[in-house]
Amino acid sequence: MNESRLPTSSAPQYPRYAIIVAGGSGTRMGTDRPKQFLELAGEPVLLHTLRRFAAPALGIRELILVLPAEQLGTWQELCGQYGISIPHTVVAGGATRWASVRAGLNQLAGADPGVVAVHDGVRPLTPPGVIEATYQAARNHGAAVAAVVPKDSVRNLSQQGSYALNRARLRLVQTPQCFDLDLLRRAYQLPELSTFTDDASVVEDLHPISLVEGDYRNLKITTPEDLFVAEALLRMRDSVTD
Amino acid sequence: MNESRLPTSSAPQYPRYAIIVAGGSGTRMGTDRPKQFLELAGEPVLLHTLRRFAAPALGIRELILVLPAEQLGTWQELCGQYGISIPHTVVAGGATRWASVRAGLNQLAGADPGVVAVHDGVRPLTPPGVIEATYQAARNHGAAVAAVVPKDSVRNLSQQGSYALNRARLRLVQTPQCFDLDLLRRAYQLPELSTFTDDASVVEDLHPISLVEGDYRNLKITTPEDLFVAEALLRMRDSVTD
Repeated sequence: MNESRLPTSSAPQYPRYAIIVAGGSGTRMGTDRPKQFLELAGEPVLLHTLRRFAAPALGIRELILVLPAEQLGTWQELCGQYGISIPHTVVAGGATRWASVRAGLNQLAGADPGVVAVHDGVRPLTPPGVIEATYQAARNHGAAVAAVVPKDSVRNLSQQGSYALNRARLRLVQTPQCFDLDLLRRAYQLPELSTFTDDASVVEDLHPISLVEGDYRNLKITTPEDLFVAEALLRMRDSVTD
Repeated sequence: MNESRLPTSSAPQYPRYAIIVAGGSGTRMGTDRPKQFLELAGEPVLLHTLRRFAAPALGIRELILVLPAEQLGTWQELCGQYGISIPHTVVAGGATRWASVRAGLNQLAGADPGVVAVHDGVRPLTPPGVIEATYQAARNHGAAVAAVVPKDSVRNLSQQGSYALNRARLRLVQTPQCFDLDLLRRAYQLPELSTFTDDASVVEDLHPISLVEGDYRNLKITTPEDLFVAEALLRMRDSVTD
């Protein structure tokens, strides 16, 4: 809740912002507690995520956390309980992910031109190199998202059953998704569509989306087993040092 | 290497066979040892996989393991070292996955009509319910593969960048992939194509492919972190009891 600026070591030549969106209610996890607040290696998932973006080497100027209005109190309690001192601004989200990101963007209304990352609050393992590369690609191309080639074959449902797609041309999209701040603002001035699944889909009618090499360890905590998997990945030295 | 039949409890009304294909060389794992031989919770990955298919409840009549010719000796040593007593037939594979599956099928040349599963040797966590459901669907429809909806958004590469696909119509394909034995034989009499990525793609010109609900825990051990993830999933009670 501290709104002072994040410490930076070697700041990039342009302002960087980050909007972390956490809208989960816990239903799919089979828990009362929303998944962003569940403990991962002894700390809330969301604290891991925040810490990744607060790394001084990234030089992020402002970190905005969007939470459902009814979860703001819980988060404040957790901040006290875990002694969370990472500077960030908390914003109440909307009824959809789209509305929540827009609420986060409104918080940046007076910000200097720069690049903004939108990131899932329940992706706590994103390697710093992926975050850095996505910011840089968005700086160069306007819009960039982290993505990986599917490890499995992919089929498309059809009336007759299903048919194989060319896996080499497909990418599973992760976050961060980084955008020129003004471009993302313009995209979020258009009406919400039911086809929006992420920010790339909000922006793509205005601007081509570049893809950056993501990481298979950049897990989205969705189901109960994902927490076990995330703990295992955290225990691997590599996942925390590159 | 014991070729006697597997014990069954409540045998299905038709013969079931399984071909387990393990062709990995270890290159992508950064290890000398092929990934199917690496230890998972104290035992070779491939032993976990074999054990899943040897479960009496599945009633599989014959279990065929296809390995690269140069790995047959290592497997024989491991069978002694770990006291592996699961009845199975070992067959030397070919230069490609397609050639290896064909070699496994040749071993079933004189077999009674029935349903055959083809399964990745490096998928050691497949829930019994997924295996059973895939056999049953193939019995009813001729060809069935286990698959899951992607958790992430999916994009298709284009000349201008990339565009979003409708995730609800996509499936990530796993194994087992089960087929009427005669249908799979006919499909493997056609020439090999470079577009073959799995058995469904070999069969689909002859017969529609049904999709069965797979499982996100049905991991394919591909990269070093997958072994850590698999150990974590094995530690979860659910992953071994359903």
